[in-house]
Amino acid sequence: MEKIDFQEMCPRYEKAMELLGKRWTGLILRSLLEGPRRFSEISVYVEGISDRLLSERLQEMEDFQIVERRVIAQRPVSVQYGLTAKGLELRGVAEAIQKWANKWEADPGKTPSEAATH
Amino acid sequence: MEKIDFQEMCPRYEKAMELLGKRWTGLILRSLLEGPRRFSEISVYVEGISDRLLSERLQEMEDFQIVERRVIAQRPVSVQYGLTAKGLELRGVAEAIQKWANKWEADPGKTPSEAATH
Repeated sequence: MEKIDFQEMCPRYEKAMELLGKRWTGLILRSLLEGPRRFSEISVYVEGISDRLLSERLQEMEDFQIVERRVIAQRPVSVQYGLTAKGLELRGVAEAIQKWANKWEADPGKTPSEAATH
Repeated sequence: MEKIDFQEMCPRYEKAMELLGKRWTGLILRSLLEGPRRFSEISVYVEGISDRLLSERLQEMEDFQIVERRVIAQRPVSVQYGLTAKGLELRGVAEAIQKWANKWEADPGKTPSEAATH
């Protein structure tokens, strides 16, 4: 029974978890949940990310079909990144994580217990 | 306004995302959501993980206070890993991800589009 569940559901679950858990990806998603943005705007929002890495993460999110790149026909040409329908439906995931983190991670600066109980 | 949100909420969000997104961690969480298990039981559930890596992941989850190691006083002594209250409340996150993945990732074996639109 459990075996069936594992075979049936885990590859998708694991794949989604791994994409979302990559450094910065969660924050990029968060910034785009507020609406489409230009590269430079995302870069300001996700404080500390390099252009190279932001570019790489956006590409991964495009490959995963949660982000799409839109060229706005104006002068000068403007490029925006926005969430697809698939991406927008990650709002529930982002909210569940935020809710949990707000409740349990009151002090993110604090070093977790290093007690070697293992 | 946004700046304040970033300062206020993101470190916790990012920290939670990164922990949960580590390879195998999501699956270990998933197996423990069904109840406490012994090391060997988790190892069977999370098919493909090495003992060294499972041990490392469990330690990280203990440091993060979502997993606790319980020694059952019997002969022979038995050790179980179970979720703490903080860990049990990740059920909502795991469910949100599963729901999303079931809807959007119908075929996990398929390679995502490699189209270089970036």
